[in-house]
Amino acid sequence: MTQVLDLVGIFVFALSGALVGVRRRLDVVGMAVLASMTALGGGILRDLILDARPVAFTSVGYVVVPLAATVIVFFWHPHVLRVMPVVNVFDAAGLGLFCAVGTEKAMNAGFSPLHAVLLGVITAVGGGVLRDVLSGQVPILLYDRQFYAVPALLGSALMAALHVADLRGWPATLAAAVLTFGLRIAAVRFRLQAPLARGVAAQE
Amino acid sequence: MTQVLDLVGIFVFALSGALVGVRRRLDVVGMAVLASMTALGGGILRDLILDARPVAFTSVGYVVVPLAATVIVFFWHPHVLRVMPVVNVFDAAGLGLFCAVGTEKAMNAGFSPLHAVLLGVITAVGGGVLRDVLSGQVPILLYDRQFYAVPALLGSALMAALHVADLRGWPATLAAAVLTFGLRIAAVRFRLQAPLARGVAAQE
Amino acid sequence: MTQVLDLVGIFVFALSGALVGVRRRLDVVGMAVLASMTALGGGILRDLILDARPVAFTSVGYVVVPLAATVIVFFWHPHVLRVMPVVNVFDAAGLGLFCAVGTEKAMNAGFSPLHAVLLGVITAVGGGVLRDVLSGQVPILLYDRQFYAVPALLGSALMAALHVADLRGWPATLAAAVLTFGLRIAAVRFRLQAPLARGVAAQE
Repeated sequence: MTQVLDLVGIFVFALSGALVGVRRRLDVVGMAVLASMTALGGGILRDLILDARPVAFTSVGYVVVPLAATVIVFFWHPHVLRVMPVVNVFDAAGLGLFCAVGTEKAMNAGFSPLHAVLLGVITAVGGGVLRDVLSGQVPILLYDRQFYAVPALLGSALMAALHVADLRGWPATLAAAVLTFGLRIAAVRFRLQAPLARGVAAQE
Repeated sequence: MTQVLDLVGIFVFALSGALVGVRRRLDVVGMAVLASMTALGGGILRDLILDARPVAFTSVGYVVVPLAATVIVFFWHPHVLRVMPVVNVFDAAGLGLFCAVGTEKAMNAGFSPLHAVLLGVITAVGGGVLRDVLSGQVPILLYDRQFYAVPALLGSALMAALHVADLRGWPATLAAAVLTFGLRIAAVRFRLQAPLARGVAAQE
Repeated sequence: MTQVLDLVGIFVFALSGALVGVRRRLDVVGMAVLASMTALGGGILRDLILDARPVAFTSVGYVVVPLAATVIVFFWHPHVLRVMPVVNVFDAAGLGLFCAVGTEKAMNAGFSPLHAVLLGVITAVGGGVLRDVLSGQVPILLYDRQFYAVPALLGSALMAALHVADLRGWPATLAAAVLTFGLRIAAVRFRLQAPLARGVAAQE
């Protein structure tokens, strides 16, 4: 169950990467690179920091799913764009799952709750940051004022708290993922905005 | 023999990095950083993923050769530009060698053939991607439609297949490197182009 | 003592990251990301290469101090800008300390002096490079012709030489840090400039 959700998250993140590739008029190689980095980059960073072999290099699905997303976007990107609202809902679900899994792995590796939360957030948002850096843009995460990292932070914090309270396994993962998902959807729905530094005017 | 070829590959990759530094009017520090990252970045990424000490931090030649390339480009860059067609031939040879060595190391570390091929490609193209990101450009690999990653992919696949068939050692490395080299040269010669997503017009 | 200086260095590097965030009109999330990456990025790269758990993921101070710097810049960035000359002096001190500590850790891990020096420089300048890449700029280090990496290089070389001569502990760290600090301050004071490649005109 978690594994299926995991691959769905990978798939949706890869779609977003491949679509950036289309928008920037990259060729098929660039699309595949962006799709893979968006989907796998966060987990690779996490596993390098945990000093573990990156999951992306042990699982067949992690290699094949981003390539499948690339093929779909290559041929049918106008249709994918049309269903983006649905894709964004799945993206929020992937965000929740990835931060919960990242936090859990870090706790199991003996990280303190504080650092496990940090690593959970990196797992969830790292791929998107790498996607933007590779496509020559300032990472959207840094300026768009949407709450994306903050839901992941709170979901990771819940995961760490449950782990400390000895509540583990899939119910904990589910709770953390659902909290992240709900906060993210609420932030989009109610157009919540992260503040700029005092006295800085919003960009037009 | 492989070691000499390896240092030649490092040298040629470093030349390309230092030349980008000249074109972007970087100072000598920037030239040295770009030369080193282009030459060593792919191997460092490979070794971090393999959880090995990066070769760049164990070999004297790996530090000295990029600095030598920087000095040469610093004083004689117009001459280096004039012999770029020759440099590009060596670059194709370095591409072949690096993907073969990267794939072999990954197979020896117990990676599956699929993941070993992936790591071989990262070894071969990672340095150039880091060079472009550091010099503030979208990586050429992602948009220029030249076949650069694809020859490395096919060479890595040959290497992995030979390894599975228990054909190892320098003849296998040579075969994979020569295949990559030949495909790369043929792609340049016949101006083969990677496709853009369906319906996307080429940039002028 | 070293630990206090270390956190002061982290704090000052984080201030510079958060200030770039203000200048680029990033939101508070972007400011916190840039502050943390500037302060911790060099050490994380060092520890990944050393195959050690990154210190940033074991110390509470390393997480809290960059966030404190973010809060200060968020509310009082005009005042921070006014005291930048003081901040720059502390930045030079942080540069000295980080390269000395990085070189020492590498020597203790069995790296050769040459490679330990290289890793010392990466520790000292890596965070600033990541800050600039994440904020969509060519790293200042590569083009601004100020001597920033070179003092770190010479300080790291002194640290490695003292280590080889069996002079270790805090006096060695202090000597290397003071040398780096002095060279950096002198370079700023006397407006020393790194050269461009022969025949390349300076940018206006």
